[in-house]
Parts: sequence; C-alpha cells; structure tokens
Amino acid sequence: MIKDRKIEEFLNDVASSKPTPGGGAIAALTGAEAAGLVEMVCNLTKPYGSLAKTAEEAKKLRRDLLNLADEDVRAFDRVIFAYKLKDNEEIKNSLNRAIEVPEKVKELSGRVEELAKEVSQIGNKNAISDAKTAVHLAVAARKSADENIEVNKHSLRLCLKRSLVKVPVITT
Amino acid sequence: MIKDRKIEEFLNDVASSKPTPGGGAIAALTGAEAAGLVEMVCNLTKPYGSLAKTAEEAKKLRRDLLNLADEDVRAFDRVIFAYKLKDNEEIKNSLNRAIEVPEKVKELSGRVEELAKEVSQIGNKNAISDAKTAVHLAVAARKSADENIEVNKHSLRLCLKRSLVKVPVITT
Repeated sequence: MIKDRKIEEFLNDVASSKPTPGGGAIAALTGAEAAGLVEMVCNLTKPYGSLAKTAEEAKKLRRDLLNLADEDVRAFDRVIFAYKLKDNEEIKNSLNRAIEVPEKVKELSGRVEELAKEVSQIGNKNAISDAKTAVHLAVAARKSADENIEVNKHSLRLCLKRSLVKVPVITT
Repeated sequence: MIKDRKIEEFLNDVASSKPTPGGGAIAALTGAEAAGLVEMVCNLTKPYGSLAKTAEEAKKLRRDLLNLADEDVRAFDRVIFAYKLKDNEEIKNSLNRAIEVPEKVKELSGRVEELAKEVSQIGNKNAISDAKTAVHLAVAARKSADENIEVNKHSLRLCLKRSLVKVPVITT
C-alpha cells in the first residue's frame, strides 16, 4: 500500500513510464498532506478543545484520502487491463470506477479545504503559514481530482460511441 | 532524511504537535511530486527524444526539492532553538536561513510549473491529466513556499524591532 512506501521510492515509481501511480494517486496523497497540516494546526492551538472535532475529522479525511490513493491505482490498472482485453463492457465499468474514485477525492479534498480555511481563521496565529499551505494543497488536490474525472469521462464518452476500441498507451 | 521515511509515518509526524516537519517541508515535497509527474509524462511521450532534456531537468528538480524538505526542517528547528536561547543575533541569522530555504523552494517549484505547462502542451495527450495535475501541484508548492517566506519575514521584522524576544509556541 502507498502509505507503507518510502517517499523517494514512491516518487521514483510516479516518475517512471508505468501509468500508475499517476496524477490520480498524487491528487489523493496531496489531499492527505493538507489534512495532516490541518491536524497539526489544531494540535498547536490552545485551548485544544475548540478544535478537537476538527482535528478528529481531519485525521479521518487523511486516512480516507491515503486509502483513495491506492483505490485510484487499482481503478486505473483495471482500465488498462480492460482496454487490453478489448472488452467494451468491462472498459465501461472500469472507467465508471475510475471516475468514482477521483469524485470521492474531490469531495474529501473540498472538505479538507473548508477545515483548512477554518483553522487559518481560528487556529494558532503562529501556525498561519501551515494553515494557508493546507488550503493551497487542498485546492490543488481538488483541481487535480477534477482533471482525472474529466479525462475519464472523455474516455467513457469515446467508448460509448465505439463498439470496439483500441488499446491506448495510457488514458490518464 | 524525509525521502527515506514511509509516507504514513511522515504524515503522522506532520499531523503531530511537533512544529516540524510543517508547511515548509510539505511545500517542497509537493514540488517534488509535481516534478515526478512531469518526468512520467516525458517517459510516456514518443518520440522520447523531444522531451529527454525536460525529463532530466525535472529529475534534478525533484531531487533538489526533496532535499529542500529536509533543509526546511533543519532551518526551522534552528529558529526554534534560537528563540529558546533568546539570542537575538542567532534568531536573526536563523530566520534569514528560514527565508532562504522557501525562497529556493519557490524558485524551483516555479520552474517545475513551467515544465509542467510545457509537457501539458507537447506531451502525450493520453497523459494530459497527469501534466495538468503537475501544474496544480507546482502552483500550490510555490504559493505555500510564499506563505513561509512571508511569515518568517514578519518574524524577522518583529525581531529587528525588539532587543529581547519571547519564545513563541511556533512561528511557522
């Protein structure tokens, strides 16, 4: 699982010519990083009680977004396999899943963005740059998830138009 | 070093109440992730030759940005220590270093952004969402580095105004 990978090794994999892990997994990871920063700002704010619920929610979002990074790899590997099989029904199903995953990443990153904006207002003022960094990262995660949704929706539309499709080099 | 850390363990550290690793290290890491995606798009583009130089530059940027994540942790730990010592000269010196590091992160992330825009134009069209994700991430890295520059410049201005300074809970 991605959470158990060493950072440099994971980035070597991203940089390689293997189609996964790609932008979808990185979008989810970036959302998780933003959530981690939200937790940090909560943990540095006194009284902590006022932000305990926010910290708890951010922790859950971080865990869920890290898991979604793996989900994205699985979903896109399935798309590639379906194209190799030239099984149109499976291509459609796999693309639908490869749309669902970044839709979830977009939704959760949007929530991280809201929490980051909240802690940048009411969190420890000495951690304001961490809170604002969390906002920038959550925005990037949300926009990146959107790129993946759009490209897979485009592939799905092409697929629905054709009965037989060619194997692409990569579609995301 | 951060590159050798497992992703989940590193994010646990970010989320904790320890002031480092914080937003500065995460900004550098995000720039490195964006550079990795640029390399991936180059590696998926044919003929590869047209983007070989871009891939090489992105690889160097990725390595440098990963190292800057560690530099940021070191620079900020030095700031905290200087405040504890109440040594105004060392506070000034450490803050200057804590400004230099994100300035470098901002510069290199800006370059990653340029390369990401280039590969989103001329790279493999099937990897367009990866290229655009790299743009979003590089922008977030650059903006986040800027937050760290500004907050440390603000601390430096306060420090120059006072002969004796209090120990802050955290300043970034």
